[in-house]
Amino acid sequence: MPDPEALIATHAPLLARARDAARARTYFAAFAESPSTRIWGEAAPAAGRTAFDALLHQTFPIKTAGAVGLIAPEKPPYGVPLDISYPHLRPEGVDELVRAAKAALPAWRDAGPALRTAIGIEILTRINARSFEFAHAVMHTTGQAFVMAFQAGGAHAHDRGLEAVACAYDAMTQVPAAVSWEKPRGKGEPQRLAKTFTIVPRGVALVIGCSTFPTWNSYPGLFASLVTGNPVIVKPHPHAVLPLALTVGVARDVLIEYGFDPELISLSVDDVGEVVASTLATHPDVRIIDYTGSTAYGDWLEATAVQARVFTEKAGVNCVVVDSTDDLSGLAANLAYSLSLYSGQMCTTPQTIFIPRGGIETDRGQTSVADVVSALRAALDELLGDPSRAVNMLGAIVNDAVLRRLDEASNAGEVLIQSRSIEHPEFAGARVRTPLVVATRADASAHSHECFGPIAFIVETADTAASLDAWRRTVIASGSLTASVYSTDADVLAAAHEVALDTGVSMSSNLTADTYVNQTVAYSDYHGTGANRAANATLTDLAFVADRFRIVESRRAQ
Amino acid sequence: MPDPEALIATHAPLLARARDAARARTYFAAFAESPSTRIWGEAAPAAGRTAFDALLHQTFPIKTAGAVGLIAPEKPPYGVPLDISYPHLRPEGVDELVRAAKAALPAWRDAGPALRTAIGIEILTRINARSFEFAHAVMHTTGQAFVMAFQAGGAHAHDRGLEAVACAYDAMTQVPAAVSWEKPRGKGEPQRLAKTFTIVPRGVALVIGCSTFPTWNSYPGLFASLVTGNPVIVKPHPHAVLPLALTVGVARDVLIEYGFDPELISLSVDDVGEVVASTLATHPDVRIIDYTGSTAYGDWLEATAVQARVFTEKAGVNCVVVDSTDDLSGLAANLAYSLSLYSGQMCTTPQTIFIPRGGIETDRGQTSVADVVSALRAALDELLGDPSRAVNMLGAIVNDAVLRRLDEASNAGEVLIQSRSIEHPEFAGARVRTPLVVATRADASAHSHECFGPIAFIVETADTAASLDAWRRTVIASGSLTASVYSTDADVLAAAHEVALDTGVSMSSNLTADTYVNQTVAYSDYHGTGANRAANATLTDLAFVADRFRIVESRRAQ
Repeated sequence: MPDPEALIATHAPLLARARDAARARTYFAAFAESPSTRIWGEAAPAAGRTAFDALLHQTFPIKTAGAVGLIAPEKPPYGVPLDISYPHLRPEGVDELVRAAKAALPAWRDAGPALRTAIGIEILTRINARSFEFAHAVMHTTGQAFVMAFQAGGAHAHDRGLEAVACAYDAMTQVPAAVSWEKPRGKGEPQRLAKTFTIVPRGVALVIGCSTFPTWNSYPGLFASLVTGNPVIVKPHPHAVLPLALTVGVARDVLIEYGFDPELISLSVDDVGEVVASTLATHPDVRIIDYTGSTAYGDWLEATAVQARVFTEKAGVNCVVVDSTDDLSGLAANLAYSLSLYSGQMCTTPQTIFIPRGGIETDRGQTSVADVVSALRAALDELLGDPSRAVNMLGAIVNDAVLRRLDEASNAGEVLIQSRSIEHPEFAGARVRTPLVVATRADASAHSHECFGPIAFIVETADTAASLDAWRRTVIASGSLTASVYSTDADVLAAAHEVALDTGVSMSSNLTADTYVNQTVAYSDYHGTGANRAANATLTDLAFVADRFRIVESRRAQ
Repeated sequence: MPDPEALIATHAPLLARARDAARARTYFAAFAESPSTRIWGEAAPAAGRTAFDALLHQTFPIKTAGAVGLIAPEKPPYGVPLDISYPHLRPEGVDELVRAAKAALPAWRDAGPALRTAIGIEILTRINARSFEFAHAVMHTTGQAFVMAFQAGGAHAHDRGLEAVACAYDAMTQVPAAVSWEKPRGKGEPQRLAKTFTIVPRGVALVIGCSTFPTWNSYPGLFASLVTGNPVIVKPHPHAVLPLALTVGVARDVLIEYGFDPELISLSVDDVGEVVASTLATHPDVRIIDYTGSTAYGDWLEATAVQARVFTEKAGVNCVVVDSTDDLSGLAANLAYSLSLYSGQMCTTPQTIFIPRGGIETDRGQTSVADVVSALRAALDELLGDPSRAVNMLGAIVNDAVLRRLDEASNAGEVLIQSRSIEHPEFAGARVRTPLVVATRADASAHSHECFGPIAFIVETADTAASLDAWRRTVIASGSLTASVYSTDADVLAAAHEVALDTGVSMSSNLTADTYVNQTVAYSDYHGTGANRAANATLTDLAFVADRFRIVESRRAQ
């Protein structure tokens, strides 16, 4: 068995840098986001591809306690069939799986924060080393374009995971392991007690993944739970199993190498429409749940799985308030990028754009709404005019529901910019669509509810005050993860910030260059606030990590 | 208006010391626990008594939004009628009260962590200055003896409150208020963003007090919620209103002085059997609840008030495992004290004592169970033999239910030590009882459920392994806040510690002098672990404070 102390020492410098960055919220990245062969070596891309290909049409090499038979539930968005079978966990098998996880807990608890943290980092590091293989897995389950799958599904997810590990370690080590307590007592000897404080996990943790960001959205909860001592059951979305199956596989390998029970992390696969997630989520021994997905199911978890600490990221309506700008083409280009990236299939993609009907002040003078729309159309054409570039931006539509919503949305008002189909030069089976932009009346309901996909609504308002008010009402009603505000007026930005504080939305202002409202960066940006209906948690604040463990004190007289 | 910056500066040194102590878990006390006139001055006791007397038979000077009419629900355990009327909040008034609290939120949020924290400390300091008045209020609502009311209801509660303030400030300030973020970009200019992070409260907080420790158990949640920006509605137990009414009064005075809306803290009084707590707890704008009381209602809150973050301290069965000792009389004296203090009416009082039926090794040689009981009887006689000393230890029985339980428990097995009535030399109306000790069979149910009051059970087991197992099963079934273990054998202590970790119980070992298992000390001891059924929270860890606020980020390109 490799030396645990050596592992702790190996990862200590990286841990320290991650902790410092997460505390300071300054720039840091442990993992390279570029797939360049100058970083990875000439052989890496092909080796990753080969490793991915070797997984296809096979039974995935993993065991799941309680599973019976196999299931292959993935529906690849690029039309490349994965045909990978996984152990099938049905509700009848949940007890056995949870029991296996629970049995693994004491030794993992007793390993202590330092070793658990080092093992968490080791797992992330090994996953990162297989970034090309993972990128193909993310791409062919989610519809992300390859480079995005490499970045958002790879390095960025690994950094989000490491951030969670660093924050969890920070929280655990704010409690001293032992202390000698002395209370002065007049002239006599002081009262003396020797005290120890032991970090203990809450219990079995459940991570419920989503179909669009299986790694990025799952890693923070997964790694935070694991390093704080909780065995983790990973329940991927049935259409995006492979990236998390690979993750669990790597983690089990590392755990076995260091002498731990692999049941500390396990994979629970079922098909859409099955209820194993609900059976797991309400099991009395499941004490932590991390969930990314629909608002309806997230709300159900929060209201029902009351035996567990439930962390949810659900859906919301992200708004853009356009008041004025000194860079209209920058605004248009930035917005076009945000609407197009991964076909708007991000929980952070802007959806509803409020513009005063009298137009806005810009660097081109007073500009009508129609002119703003023209600028956006031109920016989309520029960004997506070339199909081979466009597919690298748009990726593929993840499922039929997105296409249905596109149809419905085009009937919700006046179509300002039509969604186009693009033929994918490489994958004939991929559905690729450019963003649809629809004008809706201020009192229409379409733009007030999440319309997940490449769909944006432009809503004309009386003035910016009315825009701010409409934004506020939208967030209160539907929740929101992000907001983007454009104004050259400090008073408007201040008023917008007040709305952001009141409604608990992360706000970006005047983004015209290469920062996009739908992107958050590990160690610096918080993802979600937990302060409105879109999420009850934040990636990654103290509240996200500090409640995954408890402290058991022991004291004796000295 | 006094200068806010001056207030921050005034309390900065105390805040720093409290933060350091809470981090290091070392000895610290900001407030003097002794009522000695050498500390407080010759006039303080009489002045406090006069201030308390002036409150009696009056309408308490406080307004409650939404309240209609008055109510005087207190039932004083010493027979001294308070006859104090408070505004009566009925369920119909809840909306108005919550609305008033919510309206006060934005200005309090915008005051920022430093000023809110200083105001929290100012409130505690002013409450502390009125310690004698508060002590009478605690004594005549809870039945605590005067000195205990002065300590546990006064200085110790103030230190628990300050600990929560310090921990909350610590958590809030782990997030930088602003940062300039720079991502290197090859040869070009770095990508630059100016980011701010604003602490925002969750919403309206509710504190539901208990009848035995209205201040000690309420202050951590109350002050943690307040300084993190949440308006607080205080709902005392109907029989212990006055200490919290005084608290709310002081807090409102300070808030008004510093220009804030007094509705940031309010008092909600009703009578036993009314349901205003439930109406408040399930109000959609109530987002934090701190509760101390029965397991049934705490479980109901956790399962029902799902819109709020609910922190509960409920009930449990605290066990003592006696394996061996080198100081039998110290053991007996220590246990006698713990059983007697405030008539065992503490959530931390030991209840169920496991002893091997073959007896134990002691400094007097192999000692039978009967001899251990004799030692305990002698220690109780020594402690409680003199009535005037006894009442200072025992206080008064808080309500009829405790007397009923005493009757029932005496039928649960063989009475080993009878509970005696003591006439209170000063208060004829006080019911004073010495502890009852009953031998129950290992399979009896009486000792496996909380039997709140001066009641202990001695359970003979096959051996210490069986004792540890019985302890484990008791905690899993009923929860537990404390455990006490006596053993001279390091292996037994290690095995006991394993049970403590597995079941999430704070453990004390070999307490034979003046540290008692039922006492926890601010800044060092955690009260509750949140890791078993007795509580879902800990006074005061990071998890207790970090989830009372959220972080809203704002970023702009630079």
